[in-house]
Order: sequence, then structure tokens, then C-alpha cells
Amino acid sequence: MTLTADQQAEIAAARAQSASTARATVPALEAMLFTATSVLDHGFVRVIDYMGDDGAVVQAARVSYGRGTKRLSEDAGLIRYLMRHRHTTPFEMCEIKFHVKLPIFVARQWIRHRTANVNEYSARYSILDREFYIPAPDHLAAQSATNRQGRGAVLAGEEAAAVLAMLREDAARSHDHYEFMLNEDAEGKPRNPARQGLARELARIDLTLGTYTQWYWKTDLHNLLHFLALRADAHAQYEIRAYAEAMMPALEAWVPATAAAFRDYRLGAFTFSAAMLGVLRRMLAGESVTQKESGLSRREWEEMMAVLDRGA
Amino acid sequence: MTLTADQQAEIAAARAQSASTARATVPALEAMLFTATSVLDHGFVRVIDYMGDDGAVVQAARVSYGRGTKRLSEDAGLIRYLMRHRHTTPFEMCEIKFHVKLPIFVARQWIRHRTANVNEYSARYSILDREFYIPAPDHLAAQSATNRQGRGAVLAGEEAAAVLAMLREDAARSHDHYEFMLNEDAEGKPRNPARQGLARELARIDLTLGTYTQWYWKTDLHNLLHFLALRADAHAQYEIRAYAEAMMPALEAWVPATAAAFRDYRLGAFTFSAAMLGVLRRMLAGESVTQKESGLSRREWEEMMAVLDRGA
Amino acid sequence: MTLTADQQAEIAAARAQSASTARATVPALEAMLFTATSVLDHGFVRVIDYMGDDGAVVQAARVSYGRGTKRLSEDAGLIRYLMRHRHTTPFEMCEIKFHVKLPIFVARQWIRHRTANVNEYSARYSILDREFYIPAPDHLAAQSATNRQGRGAVLAGEEAAAVLAMLREDAARSHDHYEFMLNEDAEGKPRNPARQGLARELARIDLTLGTYTQWYWKTDLHNLLHFLALRADAHAQYEIRAYAEAMMPALEAWVPATAAAFRDYRLGAFTFSAAMLGVLRRMLAGESVTQKESGLSRREWEEMMAVLDRGA
Amino acid sequence: MTLTADQQAEIAAARAQSASTARATVPALEAMLFTATSVLDHGFVRVIDYMGDDGAVVQAARVSYGRGTKRLSEDAGLIRYLMRHRHTTPFEMCEIKFHVKLPIFVARQWIRHRTANVNEYSARYSILDREFYIPAPDHLAAQSATNRQGRGAVLAGEEAAAVLAMLREDAARSHDHYEFMLNEDAEGKPRNPARQGLARELARIDLTLGTYTQWYWKTDLHNLLHFLALRADAHAQYEIRAYAEAMMPALEAWVPATAAAFRDYRLGAFTFSAAMLGVLRRMLAGESVTQKESGLSRREWEEMMAVLDRGA
Repeated sequence: MTLTADQQAEIAAARAQSASTARATVPALEAMLFTATSVLDHGFVRVIDYMGDDGAVVQAARVSYGRGTKRLSEDAGLIRYLMRHRHTTPFEMCEIKFHVKLPIFVARQWIRHRTANVNEYSARYSILDREFYIPAPDHLAAQSATNRQGRGAVLAGEEAAAVLAMLREDAARSHDHYEFMLNEDAEGKPRNPARQGLARELARIDLTLGTYTQWYWKTDLHNLLHFLALRADAHAQYEIRAYAEAMMPALEAWVPATAAAFRDYRLGAFTFSAAMLGVLRRMLAGESVTQKESGLSRREWEEMMAVLDRGA
Repeated sequence: MTLTADQQAEIAAARAQSASTARATVPALEAMLFTATSVLDHGFVRVIDYMGDDGAVVQAARVSYGRGTKRLSEDAGLIRYLMRHRHTTPFEMCEIKFHVKLPIFVARQWIRHRTANVNEYSARYSILDREFYIPAPDHLAAQSATNRQGRGAVLAGEEAAAVLAMLREDAARSHDHYEFMLNEDAEGKPRNPARQGLARELARIDLTLGTYTQWYWKTDLHNLLHFLALRADAHAQYEIRAYAEAMMPALEAWVPATAAAFRDYRLGAFTFSAAMLGVLRRMLAGESVTQKESGLSRREWEEMMAVLDRGA
Repeated sequence: MTLTADQQAEIAAARAQSASTARATVPALEAMLFTATSVLDHGFVRVIDYMGDDGAVVQAARVSYGRGTKRLSEDAGLIRYLMRHRHTTPFEMCEIKFHVKLPIFVARQWIRHRTANVNEYSARYSILDREFYIPAPDHLAAQSATNRQGRGAVLAGEEAAAVLAMLREDAARSHDHYEFMLNEDAEGKPRNPARQGLARELARIDLTLGTYTQWYWKTDLHNLLHFLALRADAHAQYEIRAYAEAMMPALEAWVPATAAAFRDYRLGAFTFSAAMLGVLRRMLAGESVTQKESGLSRREWEEMMAVLDRGA
Repeated sequence: MTLTADQQAEIAAARAQSASTARATVPALEAMLFTATSVLDHGFVRVIDYMGDDGAVVQAARVSYGRGTKRLSEDAGLIRYLMRHRHTTPFEMCEIKFHVKLPIFVARQWIRHRTANVNEYSARYSILDREFYIPAPDHLAAQSATNRQGRGAVLAGEEAAAVLAMLREDAARSHDHYEFMLNEDAEGKPRNPARQGLARELARIDLTLGTYTQWYWKTDLHNLLHFLALRADAHAQYEIRAYAEAMMPALEAWVPATAAAFRDYRLGAFTFSAAMLGVLRRMLAGESVTQKESGLSRREWEEMMAVLDRGA
């Protein structure tokens, strides 16, 4: 991540401002506000604004006049109850807004989460920075041989070098050509007065999918948890997972009771199908069950055994 | 509206709390926070929380690092531009949460606005207060003779008296019976130990649609404006319009530039169809056009002439 | 359910129409189209229209030019895979539309599912039928002593009789008064010319929450499954569960492979939290674990033991 | 657009299938079903499925048992009324599904319409075709001098040639490198057994934003109209407008009454702000108003005069 001096000054100014409010306020999240956490080579996430806290979840569940909170342990218990029984609406009473810098191919996965508010930097209106994602050597993975949608071993040697060179050179060349086609200097004057300059909305089509963009992304706590559950998951592409993981500390700071319930009932949980439950009951009764006679597919069997810490 | 002493104390306590925040804060809205505005005979609306301000709209439109705001006049101009061209996403960056007490038939209209977060008081879990809406005499309107979905003159004399008596007695009797069927006293003990008490989720079906319920309702600024545009409109039923109107001062206090643009481009605006524009051009050319040869339906013609301050 | 002769004729006419289409068509669902299934005492559900089938799910998952379907067993396997891994978007490619007659208190629970399209009979514009829900004697349940949001034993004897009489008389009286206040006969003429008649949008507030309304409800397959999973669940109020159960045969007829996967991975499944998985591993290792040392709450322990068919 | 022989065969097979249905069926749309309409150089749109018709809108507005339709002229009048008064929910009762091939930068604009169902070809799982958008010479526009978000004159001469060469060569080189990095031949075997091949989800980041992708896109009629109103508008980028325009004939064939109302009340309409209405009243009263004293900004004045066919 490379913040310019101007950007750093703007962040510092935002952090220095202080006002008095009667709204629910979370000091642990205030301490993080506006500060950027690095993700990948040039990306970041930072919390820009928030509304509500664990108490707002409790208040909504109880629909009371005041805060609705009782003893901390009772509130945490209620939050656990809501999470376990998928009573999701109280979690919608909290809202958070992030500013994110991310490669376009990550943005394309992210935007599939429709229940959020997004304002993206417009490449019709403005000019994109010269920043593109190049995987670090230990993330330059081969195609998985077993999972069509996954990664295998890390590339090494000449192949790695060749791939990295291509990614770097193609992105750089595309950006050079983008700037050439735009024909604008830093002040918006023509670089070469003999040329008109291609429309911004067209010039951008020469950029690669690794180019960084940025947006404001605002969502409620329920949908944030859904995003994190899917994107912090091992099946998610590494690059978007890196963002989800960078957002977890903000979740922990903001709504600690909700975050704890989320770890127990979502991130660390496993859903057994009806067929799996049948197998489980037989195993608990002392029966020795094999995949073949389990009625489960091989992949289901492996997933189930993995979660039970049993060899397949 | 009848707030109990307990409720008033809770509101006062919420108003008295104060914390320091680096978030965007709006003093004019802070001054209103938690305070209930009366609506109808027992209802209210009050702002419980908010996120963002006019500056957040501007910031999202410009996607900048800091506040993104410039001179006030430039910001207001940008907000006007966004409103005029229906660039709605920047308005989604602000969020507001209301606590509302409202009759069930109003709640049923309100809930049709799907892009909002709602937590309603649960009559499966809790017992509803003995409060039901009885129209004030000057809102006891007859069915409109011309508009199947509207009101005519106010009822008077014996008919008004008979109607009011029915509404009052039926609502009161239903609530008496509700309490009888529940068979619970204020401490949750059986009133009559010989009876079991009907399940809450069933007992409520005897209540009338005028019974008050309450909920937390949270939405973003774009969807709030949509709600207000539809529900503060003269075609909306009076009872929900009363809520929309009671929410307008919060809008004005919270986002004054957005509220001004909203008045100009939505509340006070009128959309001319292609056919109406044709008529308008003829009128401006000095032609005298009649409804018959206008190609407009009688109702369209009347709406257009009304907005132009011309007799039909 | 009481369909009038006119309604039955309209349904028969709709069923008799036939057109040729190149769209995906499901004979088993065509055989049910328009026919009403009774629910509760006066309600019904019936399928009015649908789009897509199991093949549309498969096609969307494979994004191919043609149907995208392969051998039936492969398609079913893909659908099971999508369901297990919560790849929900392919299920959104199918759409279904129901016509439902239901009591207002059920409609108020149902409408909380926001991702659906709804057109409800307007009691501002039209007059509601004289139909209200009265629970059958074996559904007249007492409040649960252990679950604030549930039902206990069925009421009997005098208490049952008293409750039923109240529900019946209050609903009937409210409807009588509704008709009196409206002052309209079947042809829309005043019953009593000396009275103006109260506006429809006001007269309805005297009706009880058990009054039947009706609507068209359209949703995609993913959201239908979500609705059915929540509302066919034992925790749902009996009256809405009755609707969910009445919709299941349409699901089975329409998308049999999806319905089978849904039964295995949703309806019959159970999610173990991280803490529960820890307990499970200890049990499988032969340890005898008690609730006290399990780290689970008593309720979690009971739910887990119930699903494992073990006494708590 | 270049459909392979296989694709053409699949389309012909889909068109040849025929089933009998009691659902609402629209022969004019059936005649178009599955057929691809070319858009840009390699793109297309085609209708894959649909549900409902003009009659379904009318039926929902009337909430009746049968089709709910009356005389054609009455139904068209009701549809016009619904459109004029923005009663949008009846239009949500119709649904349509398109298969679209489109450049990634267009897909990124398109996906901002959140109320739709989308399944995109997965470049994590599959390999993208060698197709990328190169603007036709008459769409190779310069940046607008007056509108930061618009296009000016068409580029000509050497500049045009240079730009086209860059776009072509960069896209082709990126795709060559993509194939090299993947190291897979048409059968999925390694091209060069000495290399592992980069993971698909990574290799794609080298592609340019002009690369074609494809998806199934399903939406209801209300949201389709919203999409078309925004994207068939002169302010939309040409490339997405080309798709919106290619979809219009399907709209006309499917729901002719709705399409006509849409042209009158949306596409050909203009909204006058409160301030504009003031100016209009003065003009109709014979006053000669200038921009300066109008209270309108220069741009608002110009838009208003343009719509009134008056010189500014």
C-alpha cells in the first residue's frame, strides 16, 4: 500500500476531528477509524463510519424504549441465541462503512454480494492510478489437479519467473498505453496537442483485470457476517480472502459479543445433512461405518471425517 | 401519545449520555435524538441513531480519501446534480434508524417498502399495550365518490357518532377479550388459576387492525426519500402521511442540502409524459389546446392543468 | 375454503387453456396449475405461474448455450453439490408465483420475507370478504410454560368454549360493523341513503387480525427454499406452517432433484457449532460427556442430544 | 458475433422443442426465443425464458381469481394508470431471463443493478474465449471537452490508427499470455509438460477489461424497465446502451401495452423541478423569462429549453 503524503494528511485530519454524540459509540472501533490496513501489494481496507454496537442488536431483539441492555452476560446469551436460531433481523440494526482499494477481479467477486451500498471510483469520469496486483511469489499457485476451482502447489523456477514477468510487463504496458491514449498530463492538459485523447470510458478497456480500483462499501452487520463467512472461507480465492481477514479485527473491535457468537456458530460450525446425521448416529452407537455403505459421496464422506478429525 | 414515566426516564437517560466520536456528527439532529414526536392519537416517531450527513453523500460521489467536501455551495450544487440525474447510490451512504409506534394497518402499508431493516415488537412473545387508533372527528371521512381509493367529506352528526362508538367499543372489547384469553396479570401470573390461558400468538388474532404496534425501522437516505416522496404525497392515506410528515423535520435537520434538493426535484416536481410535452409545446407556441384534441385522458389533462395553475 | 361458483369457473377456464411453448415446461406442475389447496378454515394456496425447472439450475451453474443438462444422475449430483456448498445463485434462475388466501396475522409474518414480489388485495380500494380464521379445536393451544414464543397443551372444556365463542363473536361483530360503516350493498349502492358511508381505508380498521386477505406472491426458487426452511420448521407458528406444508407438493412436482437435495441438506440437516463439534469428537473417542462439562448451555445440549437420538 | 456450429445447433434444438402449457404464453416472444441478437463486435443478447405478460400485470393490480383481464382498451388504460402513478408492484409479476455475451467493462456497469439474478461464466472454473471488444472506427470517440463523463468527436487519422492498434495488440498479447500461463490445450492436457500451469483464477488477471464474458441475467419487468430507462438513455456509455437497445424489441414483443406506456411516461418524459414549474407558469402567462432571472442553473435551463424545443 502506498498512501501519498496528501492521503496520509487527510486521514490524520479525519482522525483528529472529534465531536460529542449521544449515539452508541464504540471506543475500540473509534481507535481504528480511518486508519488503513494493508491488503495485497497496493490495497487496503479502512473503516470510515459505523452505526450501532452489540447493544443495538439486543435493543432490536427486545424492542424496548431505552438501550434494552441488561447484564453483559445476559446480552451475550441473547446474541448467541439469535445467532444460533438464525434470527437475523436484529443484526441488521448495525451498519458499517469501509473504504477499500482492491484489484478489479476482486471487486468483481465482491460486488456479487448485492445487499450492500457501493460507490466506486469512476473510470468514466476520472483516471485510474498506476497500480496493479502482482501476486507475491508464494501466492503464484498452479492450477489444482483435483479441484477445477482451486489452487495447487506454488510455481517455481523458470515458470514462475516467466509468469511474473508477463503479469508485470503486460500490466505496465497497458497502463502506459492507457496514459498515451488519454493524452492528459497531471494538470489535465494534452500531453501532445496534436492528439485529441481517447474518451476515458474507452481508454480504460485496455487495462488488465489486476488494476486497482477503490470504493466505499457500506453494509449492515448481518450481511457483513454473511460476506465474511463466505469470503474468509478456505474455498474463497486467496485474494478476496485477504480482504475478509483484514476486516475481522474491525468486527472484533466493533461488536465483540456478536463476533464471538459468529466464530462459534458460523466460522467454526459444520452442517451435517440428514444422511450424515444417520451415519453419525450409527458411529455413536459403536458401529464401524465405511464410506461405501454410508450412502455419502466420497467428497461428503471426506468432509465429514475431516471435521470429526478422523482419517477418511 | 402516552409515554409512561419509565419510558420518559429511559429517553432522558439516553439523551444525557455523551461520547466523543471522530464520525460525522450533525448537531441539529443530535438535538432531536431519542425525543418522541407525537403522531395520531397514541403513536410517535423518534430518531434513535444515524450515520453520515450531507458530506457523506458528497464524499461518496467524489470517492476521495478525506471528507471530500469543498465549499458549501459546491457541495450543495453537487447534491442537486445527483438528485436531478437520479444518481442515487451516494444517498445510500447515509443511514437512519427510527423507533415508531403505529397502528397495525399503517404498519401493513409501511412494510411494503422492502429495502429497510425492521424489528417489530413480537406479539408471539410479548403482550400488546391497550392502545388503538380512533380517528379524530375531522379525519372521519366518507368514502370518496370519485376516487375508489380516497376520502370524501367528513362524516357528521349521528353517522359520525355511530361510527366512533363502534370503533371505540369494538377495539376496547377485543382488547378486554385478548386480556381475558391470555389470563395473565401484570406479573405474568394467571388471573384465574382455573384457566390455562390461550397462547399469545393466537390471542392476538382477536385484536383489531387499529391496535398499536411498534418497531425499529432503519433505512438509508435514498430509500428514506423514496418512502417520504410516496407517503408524504396527497394520494397516501392520511394516517401514514401523518408519520411521513412527522419525519420531515428530522430529514431537514440531518441533511439540509439533500432535503432542499429533494423538495425541488421530487416533492415539488411534476413529470410530463411525452404526450404532455407535445401539448406543452403547442401551448407555448400560442396554440389554444383543449382536452379533447390533446390526446390526454381527462384525468391526465386535469393533473397537467392543475400543476400549471390553469383551470381545466 | 369456500370458492364460489364463479371462482371455480374461472379456475376451470384457466386450466382448460393451452398454448404451445418452447420454454422449459414441467408436466407434473402443469397438472396442479391454478388448482387451490385448502389451508386452515378458509385459506388456500395455488400455483399461478412458474419459470424454469431443475434443468435451469444446472444450466445456470454451467452457463452453457443449450439446456446444459447431462445425464439425470450428473444433474442431480450437481444440484446436490450446489445445495451443500450454498452456491445459491443458480437456484435464483427459477421463479414461481402463488395466489394465497390467508389471515392477516399470517400475512404479517409472511411479508417479512422481503425478497419476493407481492400484490395484495387492497382494502383501501375494495371490500374484504366476510371470512375470518377460527382455530380448529385441536389447534386452540395454551401458552407454553417453557417457551415464551410457543404453544403448550390444547385448551379444553369451558375455557376452550369461552375462547372460541369470543373469537367467533368478535370477528363476526367487527365484520357486521364494517359493513354497516361502509353502508354499501352488493351493487355499491348505499344501504341507507341517509348515511354517507365511511371511507373503506378507515372502515377496515375495525376488522380483527384473523380476517382473511389474499395476494399474489412471486419469488425465486432460492428464496422459496429459504421461506420453506423457516416456515415449515417446528418453531414456526402453526398457522403459517400450514401454508408452508401446503406448498411442499408444488416444490416436489416442480423441481424434484432440488427438493430432494433440500430435504437432505436443509430440512433434515443440523448445524453443529464449534463447541458442539468439540463435544462430538470427545463422544466419538468414547468419552462420556455431560452437559455440565460440555461448555454448552442446557438448551444447546438438549438440541444436540435430540438430533443424535440420545436422551439428554 | 461468432456462434460456433455447435452453439447454433444447440439454439436450433432449443427452438425446435415444444410443449403444451396452461401458463400465459406470448407468441410474439416465443418467435424470438433463444435466438441471439448481435451487439458490438462479439456480443449478443437472447431471451431464454419468460413468465407472465401484460395480462399478469393487470391481474396483479386487480387481484382476481382468473386472468383478471377485461377489454384490451381497459387493460391498456389500467397499465397506463399504474405506470403514471408509479404503482410498480404489478410490473414485478412478470419475469424475463436473458443470456448475454458482453465485455467485462460493460458487465461491471450492468451488475450495479442489484435487483436481478445473475450467473456469470466462471473464470475461476473455466477458460475464457479469445474474444475482446475493439470499438468500430465510428465509436472511437475523443474525451468530451464539456462533460467529464462523456464523449466528443470521433478520433481520426493517425491517432485513431494508433489507438486501435494498441487496443488490438494489447488484448491479443494478454490473451496469448493467458493461454501460455494456463498451459492447457483444448483437451485440458498440458501444452508443455515441463510446466505446471498457473491457476485459472490467477491467469485471468492478465486479461484486459475489453475481454468478453457471458451470463444469465434474470429480472422482473419493473426492474427491466428501470434498467432500460437508465441504460437506453443518451447519458449511458454507448457500449451498454447498445445492449439496452438490443433488448427493446423483446420488451415490445412481450408486453406491448406496458412498452407503450413506458415510452410515453418514462423514455419520452421529462421531470420539471419546482423551480422549472415556476418558470413554465411564467412563460405560459406570456412572460419572457431569461436564464439569469429564472433561478435555474445554466445546465438546468438548457435541459428545459431543449425539451421545450426552444433555443436556450
